[in-house]
Formats: sequence, structure tokens, C-alpha cells
Amino acid sequence: MAVYTEVSDDELATFIANYDIGEVLSLKGIAEGVENTNFLLHTEKGFYILTLYEKRVKQEDLPFFIGLMEHLALNGLTCPQPVRNRKGEALGHLAGRTAALVTFLDGMSVRKPEARHCAMVGEALARVHLSSAHFDMKRPNALSVEGWAQLVDHALLRAHEVMAGLDEEIKTELAFLRAHWPHDLPVGIIHADLFPDNVFFLGGHLSGLIDFYFACTDALSYDLAICLNAWCFEADHSFNITKGTALIEGYQRLRPLSVAERDAFPLLARGAAFRFMMTRLVDWLNQPVGALVRPKNPLEYYKKLRFHQRVTSIAAYGVIA
Amino acid sequence: MAVYTEVSDDELATFIANYDIGEVLSLKGIAEGVENTNFLLHTEKGFYILTLYEKRVKQEDLPFFIGLMEHLALNGLTCPQPVRNRKGEALGHLAGRTAALVTFLDGMSVRKPEARHCAMVGEALARVHLSSAHFDMKRPNALSVEGWAQLVDHALLRAHEVMAGLDEEIKTELAFLRAHWPHDLPVGIIHADLFPDNVFFLGGHLSGLIDFYFACTDALSYDLAICLNAWCFEADHSFNITKGTALIEGYQRLRPLSVAERDAFPLLARGAAFRFMMTRLVDWLNQPVGALVRPKNPLEYYKKLRFHQRVTSIAAYGVIA
Repeated sequence: MAVYTEVSDDELATFIANYDIGEVLSLKGIAEGVENTNFLLHTEKGFYILTLYEKRVKQEDLPFFIGLMEHLALNGLTCPQPVRNRKGEALGHLAGRTAALVTFLDGMSVRKPEARHCAMVGEALARVHLSSAHFDMKRPNALSVEGWAQLVDHALLRAHEVMAGLDEEIKTELAFLRAHWPHDLPVGIIHADLFPDNVFFLGGHLSGLIDFYFACTDALSYDLAICLNAWCFEADHSFNITKGTALIEGYQRLRPLSVAERDAFPLLARGAAFRFMMTRLVDWLNQPVGALVRPKNPLEYYKKLRFHQRVTSIAAYGVIA
Repeated sequence: MAVYTEVSDDELATFIANYDIGEVLSLKGIAEGVENTNFLLHTEKGFYILTLYEKRVKQEDLPFFIGLMEHLALNGLTCPQPVRNRKGEALGHLAGRTAALVTFLDGMSVRKPEARHCAMVGEALARVHLSSAHFDMKRPNALSVEGWAQLVDHALLRAHEVMAGLDEEIKTELAFLRAHWPHDLPVGIIHADLFPDNVFFLGGHLSGLIDFYFACTDALSYDLAICLNAWCFEADHSFNITKGTALIEGYQRLRPLSVAERDAFPLLARGAAFRFMMTRLVDWLNQPVGALVRPKNPLEYYKKLRFHQRVTSIAAYGVIA
């Protein structure tokens, strides 16, 4: 949870006057998203989410994120829809930050996903991939294999503080992933962070996706591998193959994986686990004093990585190889 | 801001089924209140605030707080109105906590109060005092002069870490306040924490009061002295006499102070500054590891205390003695 930036009444009134949404009735900081400051805004026209982009989000990437949300919404995918101001702009300035207003999405994230949720997430992910095939902006994935060496540099010297020997395992794993990472898989727009927090359900159905601020251009099947890590392990870090089957089959109902994607899947899952282990490790080792966000334990993803290291075929995840 | 307790979907559904408010559409943790966990709840019937009472709020005090909010709302004062479940109860259980559902109040707190806000706050405070004259529950003020010795015990040994010599000043001040504290002023229900965060404005008017979780039975004029400390000093800790006049005159429009209350006012203001300095000091010295709330600086109230120590008459606050 995070509200990093405060907004004064005058600044808010000036900002909102640019939009055709009536007078402000209420503004409440909400515990959603760890990268940005989010407010729930109530105006005479309804409820909105007001996001202030903090320093971890690059300004030059914002038009990509906003454009993607608009594109997906236009294509029938339920995600927050950017609200444009009277000048037709979706990005404005507020309290020294770039800010955007998006529609409020009903729905609740699930804390303990079941197989049925995994099936719906797989299908929604395929829908994102298919819908964004005609989205013409690109954004390189700074957190894919080429970016991992930098994460390793930031964490290696102190990795042993989290677990003895972790530094050596990281070095070996990075070398392995760099040597074997596939570069010829189908590429497109990926969400890259479709964790349970970012998927809403309502009345037993998937009702919307949020938080597109890691979205980028990368291998589509890598996105599914990220979801597998995020959705199909139990609290004790054991892999639930029923959920794996549900997720991958849900995805394949709309977008069947190619043979190359299936063959590469164990490696993609391994890379995804490595990526989240490394970003969590960097955050864990660099907790600012007075931080308002508790970092997540990197060892959760170390355990998932260990699981994937022993997998040789996508069959281990519950689907036919 | 604070969301200390997470609520599972199943627990929430079970809890909400007890109320006649339709199905849950959305639940978002909000950055409001530091003592409890607060969620904004959207159901088919509208928006509500769901509060989970954390350990700092005593369970046996909850019926007093809930009863007071109901009493004030019935008497036309805009404050969150407790929603009763199908059994007629305003308090339930959720995620191992006692929980209450209250109506959502539009309005925004002001970050930089002006004199006109102070006038409205003074009037609203008088309205709370007059409205609660017929409220028949009582709650002793644990944070009044009898409780201060305990706060001092918790902080004295380490007070010098915050400022050299602060420990000696605390001892002297406590002795002075205990020797001179008035015990014969008009008593009633006080809000006891009517800071700018807890007052909403809308369209230039005061639209509601929130956070009654420090409310108690104590000298009414002490409540006004708390407000004077909270509303009438500038960011540089200088006292703004225009705001002081506005606040006290606003209050007196509905409830004129007696001669005894006027005479005691400098001492009450001094005691109020001491009380907030001490609770902030205790919080400052006892920050839990990984705390999600940044404690407020106790020295802000030390500076206010120093100001009041030199005041000999209520005239210094901008009204005729």
C-alpha cells in the first residue's frame, strides 16, 4: 500500500477543473499499487481512480501505458479506462507529478486463487495478447534476460544475508539463463505483472485487469510463465498441478501455444521465477528508512525457481507436451 | 495511513450477508485513521466505510463510540452513521477483529486551514458539545492530566534523544500542570482529536466530522483548547491570532465560555499541547520495525507548549478576556 504524495485542495481543484467530471466531492488515498500514489476520487459525475506517477515509473513510458489501456478497453477488455481532459489529454500534472485519471472498476482480487480463477486468468491473458496484436506502440522489457545482470549487480554482494550460498546460486542461474534463453518465440504486448492483486472478480467471473505499469513488448509465453508462478503455487510454495492445467488450458482455449513455446516453457517459468526473486531481493536489501511498503520475501521465488530447475517438460505443469 | 488487517473474500461475504446492503462490488483499503484498518466498501446499495478495530482501541469502549455517532447523527450533526445488521447490531466480527460499517461521508479535509475553516470548526465543536448533553453514556479521558504521568514514564528515559534537556522540561511541566489543572469546569462529551484530518468541507462549508475514537467525558473547554493547538498554528509553529479569534468566536456563537473557562484557557491550551507532545514522543520512541505509519514529530507540540507557557490570558488567543 502506498500514498507517497499529498495533494493540496487548490492543486486538486485546478487539476479537476480541466476535466468534464463536475466538482470534487471526496478524495481518499487508497492502498493499491506499490509504485504509484493512488486516490479514489468521487465527483459529481461518479467515482474515479487518480494516479500520481512516482519516480519508479519512467515519464517517457506513460503514453505507452495509457495508450495500451485505451486500446484494450476499446477492444472489449475490462481495464481502467483513461479519462481525457477538455484538451483531449490523458496525462496531466498534479503536485509535481504526472497524473492520470481512470475509471473506477468494480471487482475484488482473490487472496486464495482456486483452479477456476486460474482458468479465467489464462483466458484473460490470451485476450490481452490477441487484443494488443494491433496496438502499434512498443516498449522493451527492462526486466527481461538482458536486464537481469544489472539486478544481480545490485544484490550479489549482500545476497548471503538473506540465505547462505544464495550469491553463488544466483551467479550460476544467471549464466544458465543467459546461455539458454530463447529469442525466437512469438512476441507481442505482455502484461508482465498479472499477479492476483491485479485481477478483479465479481459474481464468480473475471471482471477486470488493472496495473499495466510493467506492460512491455516480450515473448507472449513468458507472460503465461509469470502467471504460472504467481497463481499456481500454494502458500507452502508447493506447485498445484490442477491450477497449472487450468491456467495453461484457459490460455490455450484462445491462443494455443506453438511447439517452440511449449518446449521453452520450463525455461520461461524458471526465468520468470528468477526475475521476481531478483527484484524482490533488491527491494529487500534496499528498504528505505521509514518505508511505507513492506517488501516481499525473495525466498518465496527462490523456492519456485528450485522447482522449475527440476522440470524438463511442460507436462510437469499439467498439460500435454 | 494504515491497513493493518487483510480480509479474505469468504470472511467478507459472510460478514456482509448479515446486512441488508446487497452484494459486495468492491473493497479497497484506504489511508485514513492510524488506529484502525479502514476499507471503502462498494455494494449494490452504495458506498460505506468498513472499520476493523485494531488493538489500540479498547473493545469495551466501542459501544460508546458507536452510540455517540448514532446520537450525533440523530441530532443533525453530520458524522459517519453506523449501519446496523439484520439483528440490529452495529458491531460485528471480521478477520479476528470487531468491525463496524458506517455510511460514506463526502467531503475533503483541508491541508492548510484558513480562518474561515477555523470559525466553522469552532461552531461544529460547540454543536458536538451541545448535542451530546443528552447522550447518557460516559467514558473517562485516559489521556487527561491523570493519565499523563504514565505517558511520561514511558518516554522520560529516552526523551533526550529527541532534544537535549527535554526530559527535565517534561518533569517540570507535568508537575506544574498537575498542581494547577482545573477540576471544576463544565464537563461533557468531547471529541478530543478534532484535527484538520477529521473535519470534512464541501463547497466552502463544513460537511462532516469523523474519527470519534478518542471521544470521552472531560472539560468542554479543553476540547476547544485541543482545536486551538491543531488549527491555529502555522507550518513554522507561529500562532495565528486571526485563526484563534475565528475558532473561539465560532465556538462562542453557540456556546459562550464561562468566566472560569476563559480564565483557565491558557492552562488548558498548555495541557493540550503537553498531551499531544507526549503521545507523539511515546510513538516516536517506540516505532515498531516495519511500521506502516510514520510517527509525527513531537517537537511540533513542544514549540506550541513553549508558546502557551508565556500566555497569561485568553486575550493572547484573540478574544476578549
